[in-house]
Amino acid sequence: MSQKDMRIAIVGLGGMGDWHRQLIESIDGLTLAGTYDIREERQEYAREKKVNVYDSFEELLADKSVDLCLIATPNDLHKPLAIAAMKAGKNVVSEKPVTLSSADLQEMIDASKETGMLFTVHQNRRWDEDYLTMKKIYEENMLGEVFRIESRVHGSRGIPGDWRQEKEHGGGMVLDWGVHLLDQILLMMEGVKLKKVYATMTYVTNQLVDDGFTASLLFANGTEVIVEVGTSNFVNLPRWYMLGSNGTAVIEDWNLKGEIVSAKGQNEKDVVPVITAAGLTKTMAPRREDTIAKAELPAVKSDIRDFYRNVMKAIRGEEEIIVKLPEVARVMRLMEAIFESAEKKQAIDFE
Amino acid sequence: MSQKDMRIAIVGLGGMGDWHRQLIESIDGLTLAGTYDIREERQEYAREKKVNVYDSFEELLADKSVDLCLIATPNDLHKPLAIAAMKAGKNVVSEKPVTLSSADLQEMIDASKETGMLFTVHQNRRWDEDYLTMKKIYEENMLGEVFRIESRVHGSRGIPGDWRQEKEHGGGMVLDWGVHLLDQILLMMEGVKLKKVYATMTYVTNQLVDDGFTASLLFANGTEVIVEVGTSNFVNLPRWYMLGSNGTAVIEDWNLKGEIVSAKGQNEKDVVPVITAAGLTKTMAPRREDTIAKAELPAVKSDIRDFYRNVMKAIRGEEEIIVKLPEVARVMRLMEAIFESAEKKQAIDFE
Repeated sequence: MSQKDMRIAIVGLGGMGDWHRQLIESIDGLTLAGTYDIREERQEYAREKKVNVYDSFEELLADKSVDLCLIATPNDLHKPLAIAAMKAGKNVVSEKPVTLSSADLQEMIDASKETGMLFTVHQNRRWDEDYLTMKKIYEENMLGEVFRIESRVHGSRGIPGDWRQEKEHGGGMVLDWGVHLLDQILLMMEGVKLKKVYATMTYVTNQLVDDGFTASLLFANGTEVIVEVGTSNFVNLPRWYMLGSNGTAVIEDWNLKGEIVSAKGQNEKDVVPVITAAGLTKTMAPRREDTIAKAELPAVKSDIRDFYRNVMKAIRGEEEIIVKLPEVARVMRLMEAIFESAEKKQAIDFE
Repeated sequence: MSQKDMRIAIVGLGGMGDWHRQLIESIDGLTLAGTYDIREERQEYAREKKVNVYDSFEELLADKSVDLCLIATPNDLHKPLAIAAMKAGKNVVSEKPVTLSSADLQEMIDASKETGMLFTVHQNRRWDEDYLTMKKIYEENMLGEVFRIESRVHGSRGIPGDWRQEKEHGGGMVLDWGVHLLDQILLMMEGVKLKKVYATMTYVTNQLVDDGFTASLLFANGTEVIVEVGTSNFVNLPRWYMLGSNGTAVIEDWNLKGEIVSAKGQNEKDVVPVITAAGLTKTMAPRREDTIAKAELPAVKSDIRDFYRNVMKAIRGEEEIIVKLPEVARVMRLMEAIFESAEKKQAIDFE
């Protein structure tokens, strides 16, 4: 019993929209119905790629053959476009961040309920293999009891020089990269209440929006999570750093270079101190090699096409949607708590 | 005009006391008058080293030839012993942390004023070359405007299994290593008010005292400093990580391995994105090698004997003391704010 292909239209053919266009080409059962971008040069680019180009958003919505709309515009436009698409009878995938506030998000969720259209968000970094590998280490207790997780993304280019530098369009690193890292962590710590949020922000290259932030998240199980984004970092700290009672896991970079180092046997008694110019320390002396075990990361493989495969099945009622709106709403509230904490310079009670 | 040697007695011949004994041997103009330890095995150890051994603290104080006392006992004993020594007419160097609270420290400062004896603290890590190198980078604006400094010391042995695990003796990592790292930072940021303190603590290997902490310090000039100590870290993050508007400096380890990486020329326009399993990023893509400059650290050399040389000159009125009591008192207040913040899970207004 073969199914009819599902047809998707892309609204906004910038960097991410074009990434989706290429991804869609590789997914069985999903067909690109066409694209629309307000910039003529991107319309022309789509024509060169032999894509059906709509002359307006209205024309796109009027295409009865379109089952699904991807909204990949600047962040402030996700809400009006997604709501209009749902009202026109289209299921909707929005790029992240879904919108700029919990109140705006609620309007989008309400539109989904009213129209009965599926609405979800492209939280694609749930499929990043570095994340999935750390999640596996966490879930399988490979480090003993985890008490601290640090998730960092560092670059040295500042913020891209387009709408991403403008507050009213939803610029800034909390909304850009924070939304991914926070979503990952809340999923990793699923079912655990987040009690306290303390955050600071940087404005090094840019006065209008944050170009970096550090958030400390205290969970009800005692775990502290650090989530950090930096865009003036010429040397990167590791992408992931996880501490358990019995070992440490680290992923250095996007290439998943990293390892797990754990205690092995008895801690040696005859510690050789580290001697510096001005003192000595036994407490901070490295362990002898025979008292630690080094292991490779349990690399997890993923296929980002599973995002769209799940969306299609969810539209057909065959599967639960993976990126659920209550999860998206929780991340949005957390981003608001981060902004509030940085502004008030106070820890915020969260849940 | 040759001066008479200054004579020093050591109270408490544990690891640090013995480190002082050896250091003193190498300092011109300073002679070890003798040692005293309540443990017979340490008395015996001193005899083997051909050191004059006092049978009691009282006998040590009664030795009129002693100019200076070093107190290197468990932390809770610094106060009574230092005060008794000053009252007996001895100048006093106390090991760090000077004592367990600001109130206790005030009693010690009062004793110094009443007796006219010099009283200072062995904040030896002011002479550590990693610290002095970062201080030079900061003071000479080698990274542009510095907006973030991270100072970490990581080990994987937990806390030593002696009195350092006991609260009443002043155990725990805030008092042990925190006192050094905080003293260094307050000196590096000299003259800048510290506005906010937020801290969390760990109790991974030990329920009685903290075996690690992370403190975020927000200074009035906008700089955020992270000070962190961990004793269940099987992989270390860098000892120092400093971010300026134009570059990053890092010192990886006790061997001063590290570098400075700075922006050079124009940031490239044709960024090659990083592609992961689930997405792409230009913002976080590494820079092309021709848009960055790598430089060696401006290594600073030091001589820890300068600590005692300064103490001797200060006693003789020839120099100002380097480790000043108001500085020591400020670090003590900061440690108290860290304990308070971690307990209340709130940011604390500091200055």
